[in-house]
Amino acid sequence: MGRSTKSPSEGSKTRSGPQSADTAAGSDFLQLDIGQAPAGGRTAWLADRLRAAIADGRLPVGTRLPASRVLAGELRVTRGVVTEAYRRLAESGQIAGRGRLGTVVVAAPAAPAAPAAPRESVAPAAPGERAPDAAGPGPALFMSAVRDGVVDTLRALPCRIDLSPGLPDLAAFPRTAWVRAERAVLAGVTPADFGYGDPRGAPALRRAVVGWLARNRGIRADPDEVVVVAGVAQALALLGGLLREDGVHRIAVEDPGSLGARQQLEYGGHTVVPVPVDEGGLDVAALRASGARAVLTTPAHQFPTGVVLDGERRRELLSWAAEGGVVIEDDYDAEHRYDRPPVPALRSLLPDGVCYAGSVSKLLAPALRVGWLLVPPDRLDAVVRAKRYADLGNGVLTQLVLARLMDSGELERHLRHVRLRHRRRRDAMLRAVRARLPGARVHGAAAGLHLMVTFDDRETGLRDTDLAAAALARGVKVHPLSWHRLTPGPPGLVLGYAAGAAHDIEEGIAVVGEALRGLAPT
Amino acid sequence: MGRSTKSPSEGSKTRSGPQSADTAAGSDFLQLDIGQAPAGGRTAWLADRLRAAIADGRLPVGTRLPASRVLAGELRVTRGVVTEAYRRLAESGQIAGRGRLGTVVVAAPAAPAAPAAPRESVAPAAPGERAPDAAGPGPALFMSAVRDGVVDTLRALPCRIDLSPGLPDLAAFPRTAWVRAERAVLAGVTPADFGYGDPRGAPALRRAVVGWLARNRGIRADPDEVVVVAGVAQALALLGGLLREDGVHRIAVEDPGSLGARQQLEYGGHTVVPVPVDEGGLDVAALRASGARAVLTTPAHQFPTGVVLDGERRRELLSWAAEGGVVIEDDYDAEHRYDRPPVPALRSLLPDGVCYAGSVSKLLAPALRVGWLLVPPDRLDAVVRAKRYADLGNGVLTQLVLARLMDSGELERHLRHVRLRHRRRRDAMLRAVRARLPGARVHGAAAGLHLMVTFDDRETGLRDTDLAAAALARGVKVHPLSWHRLTPGPPGLVLGYAAGAAHDIEEGIAVVGEALRGLAPT
Repeated sequence: MGRSTKSPSEGSKTRSGPQSADTAAGSDFLQLDIGQAPAGGRTAWLADRLRAAIADGRLPVGTRLPASRVLAGELRVTRGVVTEAYRRLAESGQIAGRGRLGTVVVAAPAAPAAPAAPRESVAPAAPGERAPDAAGPGPALFMSAVRDGVVDTLRALPCRIDLSPGLPDLAAFPRTAWVRAERAVLAGVTPADFGYGDPRGAPALRRAVVGWLARNRGIRADPDEVVVVAGVAQALALLGGLLREDGVHRIAVEDPGSLGARQQLEYGGHTVVPVPVDEGGLDVAALRASGARAVLTTPAHQFPTGVVLDGERRRELLSWAAEGGVVIEDDYDAEHRYDRPPVPALRSLLPDGVCYAGSVSKLLAPALRVGWLLVPPDRLDAVVRAKRYADLGNGVLTQLVLARLMDSGELERHLRHVRLRHRRRRDAMLRAVRARLPGARVHGAAAGLHLMVTFDDRETGLRDTDLAAAALARGVKVHPLSWHRLTPGPPGLVLGYAAGAAHDIEEGIAVVGEALRGLAPT
Repeated sequence: MGRSTKSPSEGSKTRSGPQSADTAAGSDFLQLDIGQAPAGGRTAWLADRLRAAIADGRLPVGTRLPASRVLAGELRVTRGVVTEAYRRLAESGQIAGRGRLGTVVVAAPAAPAAPAAPRESVAPAAPGERAPDAAGPGPALFMSAVRDGVVDTLRALPCRIDLSPGLPDLAAFPRTAWVRAERAVLAGVTPADFGYGDPRGAPALRRAVVGWLARNRGIRADPDEVVVVAGVAQALALLGGLLREDGVHRIAVEDPGSLGARQQLEYGGHTVVPVPVDEGGLDVAALRASGARAVLTTPAHQFPTGVVLDGERRRELLSWAAEGGVVIEDDYDAEHRYDRPPVPALRSLLPDGVCYAGSVSKLLAPALRVGWLLVPPDRLDAVVRAKRYADLGNGVLTQLVLARLMDSGELERHLRHVRLRHRRRRDAMLRAVRARLPGARVHGAAAGLHLMVTFDDRETGLRDTDLAAAALARGVKVHPLSWHRLTPGPPGLVLGYAAGAAHDIEEGIAVVGEALRGLAPT
């Protein structure tokens, strides 16, 4: 306090002055300060304050009032003052006793102040959830979402069947195992675990991630090198910021490639440089020619094409990295394979040259917001500092539960379980596409959580945004491929199959087929 | 995929080519690809791969191997191949059957490859935890932490008694209520709740926060205005970024004021402008004179002085805001009061002119990393976008559990419970300071989780960093007040009392008293 020599607790700012340690001068509940009540009028004053709070929406209907004993204690009044005030409001019908539930606000009086009743916010529709408006909104809103490129807007639109890519089977989330692990975690944590921790994340999770990556992704790492992040999105935000500081303002991305990742880099102030993807994966010669000093890539299962970066391209990309190029490897759904051998991570081949990001979003659920970032040793300190100043580290309980599920083998069991379900759904979608979209060419079916289909547009002039809008008008949500393109190419769709039941997938693809026929030139 | 017309699943990149949907071509476990095994030599090949992974640290001692049935299924070999490979490793002493635990790695062979055994990372010491080196490290490391201004370094240092400010009673964390709420949440969530959600946070928590702020902080808000963030730290990071975009590069801070907050703003590229704090709180005339267009302030309980912003200053600050100044209100521990009436939030007086940030860090635990940010309506979209691109939103399970604890009244019960414990500890510290630090002047004892003490340095020439270092050398961690000052002032200490037991507080202050006498001029 600089030049002050007077203690605030001795000062004159507090209306009732310093108190003995045994007495509180007011209540946090509605910020009631009994010092404002006129002598002899405390009951009326309290009743008035409660009435005003009910009228102006601070105490909406359904709110439980504090027990009279508790409130009386906090206000240093007799319990009779509180019970009498409560009785007056009960008589005027605004509150009521509800037995073990206590005293509850049941009605707001007609009041001049407009009540601040919570508006319901737009909740994202569940995949496959049947919204009240089962036919779905018209193409207008969808088209505006397309125009604005706002994935969130599409996500929030209701629909009957959601075939958006990017979600695993969320109904299979291992709830029982999670609660069991959480109970064990809470029985074992120390008070220190609840404090400000290491910004890199809980040591237990960093150790578990190291084991997971060694067993499943061929990566050797030390727990000290692992930074727990809030998903790959945060990994990109942190790396993007550091690259900007290094003077890197252009980042190469795959074309086609993830719209969401591209928007994230652009929000971070980067110019994205499209580099084509062909059947061998990212075109490294084109990357080299682009002059970009960093690239974001999905080598194990390119989004959205499903291509695997082939051996020669890997060697080329790693040479580019060895010459100083920054490779950001987004290993977004490498765990989901059906008909092909596993593909080791680039990071496993060149730990000193690859920034590696993975998460549990496709493994368990995006809503957990947990992932990991491994960077070359010379970037580690900067990344830890960036994470620290972003949020001081991830929440600890989710981390400790995940560590337990990884260490116990529960997460691998879950993966085996959902992989069987995902494959059945993939097969259902392949069958439906063959039957209902006979002109479509299927890409990337050997792994992942989505298919890509392309159409021959030389005869039809089909625009995939029209097709997606027409499907949404019929209640089915899909991604037009052009969303994920930076340069024009054949029209197509990106179709997620993992989150929905087989019959919804079949019906959804049938609806897309109808929509396609509806657009065909007559 | 741009110009490509060939499906990757039909291509030649996958070593074993396209498979039928019924067969997997390899295992995620160690990325094993049976296609690499010589015909007739699969057992030897598998044993070799396992041996190599144990030798090079990918399978450290204690790792559980997959069940032979599972691994055989994934590799499409007979189970006998796997059991025989396991038997060979068991014979050479590297793995062993452990009954229901399965087959476990028990020893690594002497190998040319250096094993990548996880190093233990530096874990933050528990408040009050007795570290192995009970005398604590010497002043050197502490002084380097002081010099670098790295709070994390101090946090990670072991100590016998931790009187750092900023932590509530973490031992009181309501574990049972948490697990109960989590079980109920997991029984009730829909699959959609596990997907990508609203970046503002779970609607249930935003509604619960609105109720909490109305009941406890006098704030009226709509759930749509609430952005759930990863603590006040993230709120500052997001707001700082937006202010930078608005061309605001200088942010006023209270002096003395939080070192951590100042470091965060500086990391974000801002110049901090010190504004003095006196017995009325932030000196608004000085703020005005500084020319800064934004200020970070702690009006309900100034950190570290404990001063409450008085009525006149509030009016001045709100006029400054109404004229276009950006007020960032950090309501960091407003819930903890003992001897004074509640102080309403600035935000409750001027919703359109105050950015308000609060969290559960001092209410429950910092490690949960959950807080909330309310901004004026014209900044809301930008803040939501910033949160979206920072991490796509907070993790959902912790949010839903908190919502439940807030809605059920459990959190208010917890607050009443810890407030009693905190007050007893505050009283213990006041008694100890009077007895052991007779020359110290106490500030800010009426509320919060810490005291500030100042010393008269005119005679002694005391430096508070020397005192804190001497205390740490005796195993007791405190913050020197000068850490939290931007301009010189009387020496002092910031002493947290909420996280430790009364006897540790008494002993800790006694040690500080010894340290002080050790520094006194003879």
